[in-house]
Amino acid sequence: MLKHYQLNALSDADINQLISRNTDATHAIQDAVLQIIDEVRQDGDASLKSFAAKFDKVALEKLYLDKEEIEELAMTITRDQQRALEIAFQNIHKFHSTQLRRERTVETMPGVKCWREVRPIEKVGLYIPGGSAVLPSTLLMLGVPARIAGCKEIVVCSPPQQSGKINGFVAYCLQLLKIERIYLAGGAQAIAAMAFGTASVPKVDKIFGPGNQFVTKAKSVIQGMTNVSIDMPAGPSEVLVIADETANPAFVAADLLAQAEHGPDSQAVLVATSATIIEAVNGKLEEQLAILPRAEIAKMAIANSYAIQVADLQEAMRFSNSYAPEHLILETDQWENLTRHISNAGSVFLGHLTPESAGDYASGTNHTLPTSGYARSYSGVSVDSFVKKITFQHISAEGLQQIGSTVEILAELEGLHAHKNAVTIRK
Amino acid sequence: MLKHYQLNALSDADINQLISRNTDATHAIQDAVLQIIDEVRQDGDASLKSFAAKFDKVALEKLYLDKEEIEELAMTITRDQQRALEIAFQNIHKFHSTQLRRERTVETMPGVKCWREVRPIEKVGLYIPGGSAVLPSTLLMLGVPARIAGCKEIVVCSPPQQSGKINGFVAYCLQLLKIERIYLAGGAQAIAAMAFGTASVPKVDKIFGPGNQFVTKAKSVIQGMTNVSIDMPAGPSEVLVIADETANPAFVAADLLAQAEHGPDSQAVLVATSATIIEAVNGKLEEQLAILPRAEIAKMAIANSYAIQVADLQEAMRFSNSYAPEHLILETDQWENLTRHISNAGSVFLGHLTPESAGDYASGTNHTLPTSGYARSYSGVSVDSFVKKITFQHISAEGLQQIGSTVEILAELEGLHAHKNAVTIRK
Repeated sequence: MLKHYQLNALSDADINQLISRNTDATHAIQDAVLQIIDEVRQDGDASLKSFAAKFDKVALEKLYLDKEEIEELAMTITRDQQRALEIAFQNIHKFHSTQLRRERTVETMPGVKCWREVRPIEKVGLYIPGGSAVLPSTLLMLGVPARIAGCKEIVVCSPPQQSGKINGFVAYCLQLLKIERIYLAGGAQAIAAMAFGTASVPKVDKIFGPGNQFVTKAKSVIQGMTNVSIDMPAGPSEVLVIADETANPAFVAADLLAQAEHGPDSQAVLVATSATIIEAVNGKLEEQLAILPRAEIAKMAIANSYAIQVADLQEAMRFSNSYAPEHLILETDQWENLTRHISNAGSVFLGHLTPESAGDYASGTNHTLPTSGYARSYSGVSVDSFVKKITFQHISAEGLQQIGSTVEILAELEGLHAHKNAVTIRK
Repeated sequence: MLKHYQLNALSDADINQLISRNTDATHAIQDAVLQIIDEVRQDGDASLKSFAAKFDKVALEKLYLDKEEIEELAMTITRDQQRALEIAFQNIHKFHSTQLRRERTVETMPGVKCWREVRPIEKVGLYIPGGSAVLPSTLLMLGVPARIAGCKEIVVCSPPQQSGKINGFVAYCLQLLKIERIYLAGGAQAIAAMAFGTASVPKVDKIFGPGNQFVTKAKSVIQGMTNVSIDMPAGPSEVLVIADETANPAFVAADLLAQAEHGPDSQAVLVATSATIIEAVNGKLEEQLAILPRAEIAKMAIANSYAIQVADLQEAMRFSNSYAPEHLILETDQWENLTRHISNAGSVFLGHLTPESAGDYASGTNHTLPTSGYARSYSGVSVDSFVKKITFQHISAEGLQQIGSTVEILAELEGLHAHKNAVTIRK
């Protein structure tokens, strides 16, 4: 059962409490992560092997698998599974390949030409979580835009299974992406290896990917400590569903549970235009929970979640914009009128037949999205995340006459005479 | 005189040493910044007033200036100065207004439609340095893209002058941008105020702008501590000039000095295809330094800089890409052939008549750029920096049939049965 609040009975402070998600890891995690980073910097490959023994319970001779080993593993999955991964790959590729376009040159004054050109980030690191959950979909979501961007070196790290290998699904995705090596490192140690480089693992310019609290803390520490950048800060996953009387309570409950099964700290928020809807959804929640394999996890997440009753869809959308959800599902016939009012969200699912899980896997949109309110200022991962846009300018003799005195006056008023002279000397 | 190296005499370790710029502030700065942030969180406006008294030597009654006060200050500058700021405003606006375009909808499978929509970041904070140097150009470089993006609230902070006001140039830029209030706060305390909010200063979603070591450290601390994001990490400014025998040594020297006058920690790197060029540039450097008002600062920066002699332009470009300069100037007739080989740079200036100072002020490109090697993974500020791109998807009944089994198979192989059920229940 979701906790049930009425929006008009809540104070601003109550609302702030409800929309705040704590992203702070504990100091214990920070201390452990700092020590792991230190060891990887000092001992490189040797430390990665000893962490694999300690955390992944496996003795590794070498820290990566190559083409032949990957091929062999990829053959262990069924043709249906291969086909599903292929369709996901194709849809993700189709959507992401429209994201980069040549921009036009602007002549801001006669003879003063300015433009931007796109360049791939040369070396990128993709972290693919492993362990209990295996996430081939994450490899597609990061690998496809990296390939479209044209990154020269794509370093993939994933924790080894107890076999000392990776699973066949991840292997098949590597093949689809034409990535011929995977590094067997997980956790904070994988992030440190990609940030500083070891004898086996290349140093990269930017690190992408989700992970547990150790991984996300390591990414944030690395961001402050080096000039390696990261895709975005990460917190637990979350969904906000807006439902009105046109919603099917069973669909709503299914979407809330799909979020809840991710982990005990996931959050599923229902914003509904009547108490009747909330009651109906709660009923379906109980039914569906009863037969869910990961029910224990989902129950903890539901305890950490809530429903809010609002007067109408406009009020629902205002609350959603304050919350800034990673995933937003509009389960109402009115979705077309609502979309322009969305100001803060990671990815939006429209209407009754668009479950979040379609976007998690296969519709084509990316599932690496801003959580914890970061949707106020961050976009999800896209091809944009794997490139830089460099500005260029060319000034002709005519252009220099046109713009020269303006630059001289502005340099002078800022007291920067060498800036002024760089123009004057050319006139 | 620039220190002079020959590239083919350098080891990889030597090169790594030359291209590394230390971005770490000292612990003393970190400690001071943490304490300032703490005080602003606890005491809000009162702490901002006491910091203004301590650091800016001014007793403030209120922490902002409004429309009428801004108008009055803006009238104190000359018509020529106003005109120069207007031209800069127009060029920056013209270039930046081409940066956002509607993207098309992609139907990845029949009935599965995906697209992205742009939304402004609602509340942005712009930090405009003040004190000895006054930087109205920075206000234009941040304010114009914020306006084009459509940000609802633009909070501008700048340290008060001893008059308790701001200078007329900044005031005139506020008018051009139709920003009707400026907050009188500088340093780490301004960053903290925008991150947490005070009675006077609104909390924002993202903070932009350059500043001294306290400001940049505060931005990096805030990024790790809150879900307020920042434009980019910042280090001292830098230029790399590639020159061949077609270069005019006086122009090259002027460009190096324009960088050097920024501050003692600025870096100006010359990469030249012969020793003769380096000698000629060094000669012109001495001449121009002799009559430069900020010669003392520039000399310290030159001592922190160097020249590298290379065999040809290809080798020059490889070194430049390793260095990843904030500003790159190609002083060669061959610039058109070189540009496609540029992989890492913030902003590029092409040919003999395109000084960096044109882009610093008025050509239209942005001057807020990645330093310290961050050009490997970051772009400069643009309209992109002030928006999010939200993904949307709509699936029809036909679409659900098309994509349903793929999602079910992938959810099952990742062990996420509620994800699967969110599709099955709708089929």
